[in-house]
Amino acid sequence: MSVPARRPVTVLGLGAMGRALAGALVAAGHPTTVWNRTPGRAAALTAAGATEAGTAAEAVAAGDLVVVCLLDDEVTRQVLALVAPVLAGRTLVNLTNGTPEQARRLAEWATSHGADHLDGGIMAVPAMIGQPGALILYSGPEDVFRAGRETLAAFGAAHWLGADPGAAALHDLALLAAMYGMFGGYLHAVAMIRAAGVPATGFTPLATDWLTAMLGALPALARGVDSGDHAADGSAVGMQAAAFGNLLAASREGGVSTSLLEPVRRLLDDAVRAGHGADGLSALVDLLRQS
Amino acid sequence: MSVPARRPVTVLGLGAMGRALAGALVAAGHPTTVWNRTPGRAAALTAAGATEAGTAAEAVAAGDLVVVCLLDDEVTRQVLALVAPVLAGRTLVNLTNGTPEQARRLAEWATSHGADHLDGGIMAVPAMIGQPGALILYSGPEDVFRAGRETLAAFGAAHWLGADPGAAALHDLALLAAMYGMFGGYLHAVAMIRAAGVPATGFTPLATDWLTAMLGALPALARGVDSGDHAADGSAVGMQAAAFGNLLAASREGGVSTSLLEPVRRLLDDAVRAGHGADGLSALVDLLRQS
Repeated sequence: MSVPARRPVTVLGLGAMGRALAGALVAAGHPTTVWNRTPGRAAALTAAGATEAGTAAEAVAAGDLVVVCLLDDEVTRQVLALVAPVLAGRTLVNLTNGTPEQARRLAEWATSHGADHLDGGIMAVPAMIGQPGALILYSGPEDVFRAGRETLAAFGAAHWLGADPGAAALHDLALLAAMYGMFGGYLHAVAMIRAAGVPATGFTPLATDWLTAMLGALPALARGVDSGDHAADGSAVGMQAAAFGNLLAASREGGVSTSLLEPVRRLLDDAVRAGHGADGLSALVDLLRQS
Repeated sequence: MSVPARRPVTVLGLGAMGRALAGALVAAGHPTTVWNRTPGRAAALTAAGATEAGTAAEAVAAGDLVVVCLLDDEVTRQVLALVAPVLAGRTLVNLTNGTPEQARRLAEWATSHGADHLDGGIMAVPAMIGQPGALILYSGPEDVFRAGRETLAAFGAAHWLGADPGAAALHDLALLAAMYGMFGGYLHAVAMIRAAGVPATGFTPLATDWLTAMLGALPALARGVDSGDHAADGSAVGMQAAAFGNLLAASREGGVSTSLLEPVRRLLDDAVRAGHGADGLSALVDLLRQS
């Protein structure tokens, strides 16, 4: 009985995330070639069976699928310029953090060099790569995603978002925006309750239950946003804007900066001024769109 | 077989929330007396069996436990001044939105008039009152809470937070802060993805799963806050501050205001400047505390 050969894969960039990605490929049985601009990061990987290439071009030449995980878009473009002559016929999977526009430009560039291209957004920290719960978002041509899917499964759940090369970066960053909002609100809450001598660990189960319950409101909010029907279901923007004063006052009573909350208050006030006083929070989204 | 008589209860204030509270008491079999400054709000309640009093003092005189749910602290103090002579020996449960300081002042005032006092924070919209999932936070003397608990259960789950009369308002407002952070982040995310033509309803299951997963980070954050040990677990503040630029750039690419995100970016930058670049997000809480 012969085991089918695993696709040879190359990883460019051995920061914490690049090392985690390469490690997952080695663990999944892929012939894995790695490269980093600064040498000396590959010891654990080569000990596990990976091959360290001396140049980026050598690394790319060894792989059928080329995973890129570098510092940023600028470094990515510099490195890829070096390997452009050997890219044709390979699949470039860019997991470097970037914007949708950067992903679209890179997709064009890759196509012009005869390479297939997927862009990805990693919704996980390095320690989660290859573990249950790691989610990686992808966008680009569906056939390229399907062809790469089995290999990419080494990293975690692979979720394809559509042909627009910018979709993965867009969703990645939108999810980060949602996360920073939630963490910001939570940290403000913790600052408030700690000002009254209540420990954060005591407050957190209550906060988690509450935020979990409030997540249940998102589908109705989304329907309001998409339909433009912002009829309030018991919590009109005007009422919330009026009640917001207590939140700011209690923060100040406790010596907590209102910096994270002020823009929410301004948005609620703007909504009231724009005639949305009787509407629900879904009316706020259009106010965030700049003309 | 005789059914034990239910405690007579009074509700002052018949806004949407006051009506929901009174309705829940009637449904639970309590002799319920209601009063509102502007008459004409009690028709459905009296039809269901409640009694409408002509004056606030008459209403209070009819109740053993007096629930107050008025517009704000100022109105509450005005109304309670009218009923001060008949308050002695009763239990005042103030569910009017307010700050911790207002709750503490009212508790002192109630005590000075011979009344027991609980302050409460309603973590529900009116439609949820009396339904599973409604949570009401209480603070004040534990024996007063225990004595009122069975009656208060008519509204929803009753959660006692301690003897400090301000604790319920504090936790109520802290939870609202966390909620507004989460909703703000979500609405920003929705504005971003809609700018690329993706509907909010399509994005929301992904956002809900993601935020649910991120809620799992709160206990570790809380431990970092309480212990002061902010060692990062894979996502150092400095790295996050650097990556935040993509989030702002992608927002601008989509014509989305960065107003909700700017204070988070400033907080991350402040943390880096304060020497927390290698720490986790728990280091941010102290920066929210003003001296």
